[in-house]
Amino acid sequence: MLVNGKAGNLISIRDRGLLYGDGVFRTLRGEQGRPLHWPLHYQKIQHDCNALGIACPDYARLSAELAGLLADHPDGVFKLIVTRGQAKRGYAPSPQTIPLHIWDVAPVPEYPASWALQGVTLALCELRLAWQPRLAGIKHLNRLENVLAAAEIVGLGDSVAEGLLLDADDNVIEGTRSNVFLISGGRLITPDLARCGVAGVQRDRVMAYAGEIGMAVEVRDVKLDELRGADEVFLSSSVFGLWSVSRFEQQQWTGLDYVLRIRAGLAGEVNA
Amino acid sequence: MLVNGKAGNLISIRDRGLLYGDGVFRTLRGEQGRPLHWPLHYQKIQHDCNALGIACPDYARLSAELAGLLADHPDGVFKLIVTRGQAKRGYAPSPQTIPLHIWDVAPVPEYPASWALQGVTLALCELRLAWQPRLAGIKHLNRLENVLAAAEIVGLGDSVAEGLLLDADDNVIEGTRSNVFLISGGRLITPDLARCGVAGVQRDRVMAYAGEIGMAVEVRDVKLDELRGADEVFLSSSVFGLWSVSRFEQQQWTGLDYVLRIRAGLAGEVNA
Repeated sequence: MLVNGKAGNLISIRDRGLLYGDGVFRTLRGEQGRPLHWPLHYQKIQHDCNALGIACPDYARLSAELAGLLADHPDGVFKLIVTRGQAKRGYAPSPQTIPLHIWDVAPVPEYPASWALQGVTLALCELRLAWQPRLAGIKHLNRLENVLAAAEIVGLGDSVAEGLLLDADDNVIEGTRSNVFLISGGRLITPDLARCGVAGVQRDRVMAYAGEIGMAVEVRDVKLDELRGADEVFLSSSVFGLWSVSRFEQQQWTGLDYVLRIRAGLAGEVNA
Repeated sequence: MLVNGKAGNLISIRDRGLLYGDGVFRTLRGEQGRPLHWPLHYQKIQHDCNALGIACPDYARLSAELAGLLADHPDGVFKLIVTRGQAKRGYAPSPQTIPLHIWDVAPVPEYPASWALQGVTLALCELRLAWQPRLAGIKHLNRLENVLAAAEIVGLGDSVAEGLLLDADDNVIEGTRSNVFLISGGRLITPDLARCGVAGVQRDRVMAYAGEIGMAVEVRDVKLDELRGADEVFLSSSVFGLWSVSRFEQQQWTGLDYVLRIRAGLAGEVNA
């Protein structure tokens, strides 16, 4: 682990990341020493820092730190956190505050092989995501909604791989740790994240690839009935890639045409 | 500062308080070595821990730690944070995780004397609080809304003491670091916090005292027009006590009858 580029695993109890969740993060895969889609992750964390008025550490510095970590851990899940740093008491941020950044490494999670091959069971969470357009899309450190939603899913046992989150208006938004896609009549549809949700790097990659192969891509509000009636449903994440949804409540899907094609396409892309 | 009861000011970068804002906190005043309304603060943090499924450290232990801090710092602002602690990767909490608790001490903020004597200027924040009934009322560590709102107020200069927060439905909810009260026709009115907002200890004390002296107390939705038309408006906080609002946009108030009476009443209460 690195804290501001130095080996360490501790931060101050006065860091605003702890006090207020005042920071952002990204999670990416290292594979055989290569940081998968690191430039895209950097773009996202830079965007999210800007949205909160936090100065993002520069690309060259973070890239060098990541390269150092990959030399020791060629395969793993790398987490980058940028917080606003440590400041005097009170919610108001000060322009003088110096941001803090943290790298952590964890082993790649071991999921059942069937999840990637045949698909996963998705379950509906009771928790509804709140609308906060000022924070929507950003992968910030205020993640209690995800914690509560994930706790619901753990209670359902190991057969459920992911929880589906709606907003208070019953729009489908995302998984607890993934983005959601529908295939309907050859079109790719994914929920609009203007009011809540986290816009993942893998989500962008899926949309870009679908556009490249000539699919119509729609980013808009999606209701549960549309999801239930879709030809295919799949989840995206920088950690697990793409998982087809084979079951959601009474609905079952067996077709994997599009998810396999998109997965193969993404796997074949130059790591950029 | 104490971390799990031991002198220290560092926590792990893997603590869920940092990673997800998965924790709660309280801020209370020490005055001449006495912890003001500590039992009420404990009740609140215990309630908030329960709401998130975090085991709250017991009262005797926290009281002893606080007494030790007060011996060195008889006057100050004491902050208690309880996080879910450090766990394996992922949003889902585990019942095995051992909570972490932190005490920090800061000097009592020095506000202009006029703020307590003549009242303060309140300004409307553009940010609207999101509705999340699962987290409403709880003083948790997901405070980015407060950060963004406080940043708006800092931009207005030193003459504005506090920012007023509405929800997306234009209900008055709270200040960025305080609760809001109206006096209308001798009744005490404060916003319902069932969908968003933080329920402060001082808010409870104001309502309890008003009830004791025979005032009608109403907890319900409040719109801006009702606030503008109120006989008195005041703010409550465990750090600053009560501040009358003397100005909000074009509206000015000079009457202090109720706020002075309630403030005097609260000051006269046994420290419980």
